[in-house]
Amino acid sequence: MSVLVVGSIALDDVKTPAAEHKDLLGGSASYAAVAASFYGPVRLVGVVGEDFPPEHRALFDERKIDTAGLEVLPGKTFRWSGEYEENLNNRKTLSIALNVFEKFQPKLPTAWKQSEYVLLGNIAPSLQMQVLKQMEHTKFVVADTMDLWINLAKPDLLELLKRVDMLILNDSEAKLLTGEGNLIRAGRAILGFGPRYVIVKKGEHGALLFDAQGGFFSTSAYPLEVIHDPTGAGDCFAGAFIGALAAAGDLSFAGLKKAVVQGTLVASFNVEEFSLRRLQTLTRAEIQEREGAFLKHLTFS
Amino acid sequence: MSVLVVGSIALDDVKTPAAEHKDLLGGSASYAAVAASFYGPVRLVGVVGEDFPPEHRALFDERKIDTAGLEVLPGKTFRWSGEYEENLNNRKTLSIALNVFEKFQPKLPTAWKQSEYVLLGNIAPSLQMQVLKQMEHTKFVVADTMDLWINLAKPDLLELLKRVDMLILNDSEAKLLTGEGNLIRAGRAILGFGPRYVIVKKGEHGALLFDAQGGFFSTSAYPLEVIHDPTGAGDCFAGAFIGALAAAGDLSFAGLKKAVVQGTLVASFNVEEFSLRRLQTLTRAEIQEREGAFLKHLTFS
Repeated sequence: MSVLVVGSIALDDVKTPAAEHKDLLGGSASYAAVAASFYGPVRLVGVVGEDFPPEHRALFDERKIDTAGLEVLPGKTFRWSGEYEENLNNRKTLSIALNVFEKFQPKLPTAWKQSEYVLLGNIAPSLQMQVLKQMEHTKFVVADTMDLWINLAKPDLLELLKRVDMLILNDSEAKLLTGEGNLIRAGRAILGFGPRYVIVKKGEHGALLFDAQGGFFSTSAYPLEVIHDPTGAGDCFAGAFIGALAAAGDLSFAGLKKAVVQGTLVASFNVEEFSLRRLQTLTRAEIQEREGAFLKHLTFS
Repeated sequence: MSVLVVGSIALDDVKTPAAEHKDLLGGSASYAAVAASFYGPVRLVGVVGEDFPPEHRALFDERKIDTAGLEVLPGKTFRWSGEYEENLNNRKTLSIALNVFEKFQPKLPTAWKQSEYVLLGNIAPSLQMQVLKQMEHTKFVVADTMDLWINLAKPDLLELLKRVDMLILNDSEAKLLTGEGNLIRAGRAILGFGPRYVIVKKGEHGALLFDAQGGFFSTSAYPLEVIHDPTGAGDCFAGAFIGALAAAGDLSFAGLKKAVVQGTLVASFNVEEFSLRRLQTLTRAEIQEREGAFLKHLTFS
């Protein structure tokens, strides 16, 4: 079952205490689409400028991602530059240039309007809604978001939340969106805004899945001694989640839990190298091997 | 199998954003001994002053804790006063009065020297060592510690670590002790100091168990919407851990994992009320019921 992924596609400059790299492939849709592609076919909706490097497009091709929805507009690709502090937990944005992204009006190829599994990657909620309004027969729609939209476009986000099946966001964003200091209360409060499910990502501490019918699932992250670049981990999580969900077609709570674990695993690989370099060489066999180790880490009875 | 618990016994004044209580039963040994008592007999080694309230001693009696090692010295009981910030994650110590604790020289009743399961609760490493040197046939010795001792008595602590089976400490203490910013590296680095096992507690994010032979276990915390007083959660974790371990007598890695889960469960009850009030009414049936819910939260295959 094809997964439709919409979001940003960017050229990133990323600096960590250990290294610095320029013109990396970045953006929420790039990470999510590549992560989802490990589980089945992916349709990518996004926009780039005329400067978008052929080697980045080649990665989408290698991963057999359908780029019929990838628009090329005159001008430059969206650029982001950021720097991570020691221990990689905090980052600051050094610069943003929206470029062609400013004119992004997502339009779906006609056949794609029937896509059943949809990831509205992290972009403005109004753009996420624009995509959603073009969809005709969705089975499961996931929206990702970030603090920027909670601060700048909360009414749009709340409107969107009435129409999606799941919201994915991180712990500080969940607290920001709800005003709740307790993460369990925050997760449950978001269910009150409309989505049937909420996933709260906690980085190195794993993720929480809340179900409006009372279900709850908590998983640890895969333990890593070395992290090179946390950029895109959340997008990879969301992409692998929707990819695994679509591949299995099991929308029960048990099925959702399994998809959360896949999200956790693919995200854990992604942070091992800059940009999408680790996912470029990643295989399903490696994911399965790590899944086996991960299961042992969590099992106690 | 009896568990020997040594540590501090205190009268606490605790203030949270929601409430303030005075003259509460506190101290690492109080929490740990009561937590351990849900699994089997407990021997308590500690010191109090002549002002120690009969109702606090009555709790030890109710829980059938053997207080033959509880010394009463002329003077006042150790006092601690602290205040929690909004969301209860940070606390500051407002005052400390060591009182009789300053003269504490733990001496074990002769029969207790044969205790096989020992929890060296959070006190100065030199006092923990003094207890350990009196023990004759230990099977499993756990030491707890805190940032104070890492900063003030690191050589003593490192000496102790050569002689215990397990160290329990929290995430920031693990980083402080090792100088490692990454928690997985920090946990493994501590194994290099001597203990075969290390548990890193992460509060609301659960706990990590490291085995010098490469084993690893990660568990979430039990999800709580309301926390009234986090004081003693770590001590309860350690107490329930050693109590459950002694009761089962299973020192395999699988046995340790199960004891970690019991530690997590009892700690989750303890924070629901001030001091040891929740554990005062807690039953084994309640622990088992929560264990069932907890298992469902973590299971995904």
